[in-house]
Amino acid sequence: MNCGPEQDGVDRMAPFSEPFREELLRLFQLRRDVRRFRRDPLPEADLMALLEAAHTAPSVGLSQPWRFVRVQSPAARAAVVASFEKANDAASKAYDDERARLYRNLKLAGLREAPEHLLVCCQTDTAQGHGLGRATLPGTLRDSVLCAIQNLWLASRARGMAVGWISILDPEELRGPLEIPPHWQWVAYLCMGWPEKEQDHPELEAVGWEQRRPLSEVLFTR
Amino acid sequence: MNCGPEQDGVDRMAPFSEPFREELLRLFQLRRDVRRFRRDPLPEADLMALLEAAHTAPSVGLSQPWRFVRVQSPAARAAVVASFEKANDAASKAYDDERARLYRNLKLAGLREAPEHLLVCCQTDTAQGHGLGRATLPGTLRDSVLCAIQNLWLASRARGMAVGWISILDPEELRGPLEIPPHWQWVAYLCMGWPEKEQDHPELEAVGWEQRRPLSEVLFTR
Repeated sequence: MNCGPEQDGVDRMAPFSEPFREELLRLFQLRRDVRRFRRDPLPEADLMALLEAAHTAPSVGLSQPWRFVRVQSPAARAAVVASFEKANDAASKAYDDERARLYRNLKLAGLREAPEHLLVCCQTDTAQGHGLGRATLPGTLRDSVLCAIQNLWLASRARGMAVGWISILDPEELRGPLEIPPHWQWVAYLCMGWPEKEQDHPELEAVGWEQRRPLSEVLFTR
Repeated sequence: MNCGPEQDGVDRMAPFSEPFREELLRLFQLRRDVRRFRRDPLPEADLMALLEAAHTAPSVGLSQPWRFVRVQSPAARAAVVASFEKANDAASKAYDDERARLYRNLKLAGLREAPEHLLVCCQTDTAQGHGLGRATLPGTLRDSVLCAIQNLWLASRARGMAVGWISILDPEELRGPLEIPPHWQWVAYLCMGWPEKEQDHPELEAVGWEQRRPLSEVLFTR
């Protein structure tokens, strides 16, 4: 283990500065779930940097159970669009009147515009990690994948790039078209690219779907 | 929406700098799952800042389903320690020989030393978000909670503080002692405090339990 200064003179273990912490908070606050993408491609080097950031996430027992699938073929993407349209139609019918009208006005996908599609799965039968820490809480394997996604999301926003998590999809009907192996569990389908514009507030708040509540409402003591 | 300079002259939407992105990557790389804590308390203001960082996380439909419970009473903490010891004993018996010996040498909790215990739950019956985005993928509610945890973890490390996620616990037997309401799902039990020392590498790697693998092994194309 190397906890001291590196050979190049950079102290890898140096404390993080107060200005860095302030910028980190700004990053947390400005990370958005984006639906409006420009069509320009993401540079390959940037995309790999984002995936490397995801890959530094914590994982139960050091299991690293995340599996990243870049979905590029027109046939696979068409299947995803079709699944979204079907699930979205069904979802809109579950609301009545005013809420249904609001729902139909939401932009809930950016599948056609986003240059990069990333399916993120959890390999549930991985031997890596030797099962540590998941006997009583098996969900911790999937939990690890979420930590990786949040890293990727933050790293994207730090580069001015955008991520949109599309959850109005039927994972079972996409298992075939996306060639998802039997022991891979669907976790997230992410659109990635450049945002049409930067957004300060969540779009769902701006259009009146929901409001954020203060921390005090979710904090308890025992 | 305010996308321009703020009244105080700070441009809230300014791009993040290259040095910031480099520090962010260092933060990702140095975030550890800590088991060895000093006993000094965490300043209340710091703890609240970490929870505020968590509370900026993305959530499906803007549902903010995370519930943070500071576990402070000696009786509640004793129940957690007892649950850990029972689950840990059972887990150690599931390995044979060499792996069991390795397991018994791992330090898997820091429950007695860590000054702060935080239970993180997901309120599964929340009306907030109006069900958006979880009809076909109900797990997205819990997924949101994980994004909040990863924010908290990163914000902690940026302040030189430590988080240890204890998953060798039986959530059902702790529902009573921790007074967990019926519709709250257990997500994580976190020890928080100051690390005995900063660690560059995961402890599980240092002691030979598991090795991290390269990104190339988890990246695929369709």
